[in-house]
Amino acid sequence: MTAGAFRGRRVLVTGGAGFLGSSMAHHLSAEGAQVTVIDAMVKDTGANPFNLEGLKADIHRKDLRDREAIGPLVKGQDFVFHFAGQVSHSDSMRDPFQDLGANAEASLALLEACRRGCPEARILFSATRQQYGRPRYLPLDEAHPQEAVDINGIHKRAAEDYHLLYHRVYGMRCTSLRLTNTYGPRQLLAHPRQGFVPWFVRLAMEGKPLQLFGGGEQRRDFSYVDDVLEAFLRTALNDATLGEAYNVGGERPYSLNEFVRVLFEVVGGGTSTVVPFPPEKKSIDIGDAYCTADKLARAVGWAPKVPLKEGLERTVAFYRKHLERYT
Amino acid sequence: MTAGAFRGRRVLVTGGAGFLGSSMAHHLSAEGAQVTVIDAMVKDTGANPFNLEGLKADIHRKDLRDREAIGPLVKGQDFVFHFAGQVSHSDSMRDPFQDLGANAEASLALLEACRRGCPEARILFSATRQQYGRPRYLPLDEAHPQEAVDINGIHKRAAEDYHLLYHRVYGMRCTSLRLTNTYGPRQLLAHPRQGFVPWFVRLAMEGKPLQLFGGGEQRRDFSYVDDVLEAFLRTALNDATLGEAYNVGGERPYSLNEFVRVLFEVVGGGTSTVVPFPPEKKSIDIGDAYCTADKLARAVGWAPKVPLKEGLERTVAFYRKHLERYT
Repeated sequence: MTAGAFRGRRVLVTGGAGFLGSSMAHHLSAEGAQVTVIDAMVKDTGANPFNLEGLKADIHRKDLRDREAIGPLVKGQDFVFHFAGQVSHSDSMRDPFQDLGANAEASLALLEACRRGCPEARILFSATRQQYGRPRYLPLDEAHPQEAVDINGIHKRAAEDYHLLYHRVYGMRCTSLRLTNTYGPRQLLAHPRQGFVPWFVRLAMEGKPLQLFGGGEQRRDFSYVDDVLEAFLRTALNDATLGEAYNVGGERPYSLNEFVRVLFEVVGGGTSTVVPFPPEKKSIDIGDAYCTADKLARAVGWAPKVPLKEGLERTVAFYRKHLERYT
Repeated sequence: MTAGAFRGRRVLVTGGAGFLGSSMAHHLSAEGAQVTVIDAMVKDTGANPFNLEGLKADIHRKDLRDREAIGPLVKGQDFVFHFAGQVSHSDSMRDPFQDLGANAEASLALLEACRRGCPEARILFSATRQQYGRPRYLPLDEAHPQEAVDINGIHKRAAEDYHLLYHRVYGMRCTSLRLTNTYGPRQLLAHPRQGFVPWFVRLAMEGKPLQLFGGGEQRRDFSYVDDVLEAFLRTALNDATLGEAYNVGGERPYSLNEFVRVLFEVVGGGTSTVVPFPPEKKSIDIGDAYCTADKLARAVGWAPKVPLKEGLERTVAFYRKHLERYT
């Protein structure tokens, strides 16, 4: 992806035992970076000890809000990839204080630690398309108003705002990337509360019927993990992106019905049923939602490379070997 | 203002020992409402025991995050006026965690308590013009992007978002009012970190020179406390405003130089000097910033009634009697 640029560099990955964090840590370690991983290993969030197997990194089980522990770990870092957080929309409604702590307070604590310990570090934050809320127009671009429809969106927005503010006020070298539905190896499949993609992958692999809320014609875009990593790495090496936020979008929108057809093709069959929206889901559902990544394409020349079918093939191949580690 | 409408109604005022909160509590108590006041009495935030003198209300010194204490206090309330919070922009940069707790977490805790104890209550949140950040156009209307230039703006925005979200998701009866530079009796004059208006009033009354950063031509609008109270009361009685946010703007913009001239007229003289911006202030300054309140005018027929000179006369008359209680 970014051959050699990270060799010998000091890189901190927060949430490094989770889906994207561990994928980044493995990639950078293989590229020869000196990787430090911080993860609080909170149950159900995606943190998974199996994601760390075979990883050459300095690994710390710590909460980012633990100032005494985090201070020394950020010191002297060249890059900080901040993936730690609570990602479930429904969990954020059930326990908004946990979400506040994991997304807002933890991000603020990380930035305060970096301001003291590595003020020159390049810092990348993983934000979310959910910050936009119900789309007023499509595709979503970065100028779209941010009117979150759940607590998670409010707190991810606040966390992104901290990063952009710390750039403007303190000159810190932060950029935010807003992710859409990401998928791939190393993602938790244990429950349906972290987005429907990993859950559907699991059900299809286990031959269980998939439930589509509404009619299944809602359209979404999807990002395969390798494309997401490349977006982060290219952005991290490009100083024209400092203080900005960018969408990391998928190749094109798919309806859920289309998505399920591709998934069934990859898995070799399956059944789905259309059911009415459960009320607690309906209240935070956003209908059609997909992004344009044109701004990022212009800034760093990034575009998604892995089509949905190929991404799902690689994903299913991974879980055929390791399903029991993620359920 | 709203003759009789609150008589016998149960009203909770958070931040009820502060500037706006205590003004509201006195007004509603005089109107015959059953007033409960909650205030954490945090030093330097504006809470002042003197503001509670002569108030007929049920007064509790509690932090909104103290769930066990707050639960019983919200039970059965008809109206909740939520003024509690940390209002200093510079303090929010010095201690962002304190601001997170006082503005975001405390608001979330209040809403969660209300969801359980008074889900039908009419809830009004005091938001701030600062949420908009540096104006892209003037006057600021409610559709202006919210790009806060300090931690306080990020957290006030999050707190407002909670209120609007709890309306959409849970049907709670919330409205947010975004205040501009408010002034009047009962405001803390002890330090310059809660906006320049009370600080300038104090310096002028003490015959000390006023420092104007930059050239003094920055334009702002101002709201006298009675106008602000009327905006809250009218909005509280109008269900067409549920789930919406409104600017509470001043009569017209004044340059700081104009403001100072009016103040000196009222006080009977004074001196001011123009000095360069201190760097830590410059980084979070927003230049010209004033609001239109047309949306609120259309919704509830509100408009500011007290011109700046008259408001300052009433303010100065109050502090001529009570200055030592507020410094």
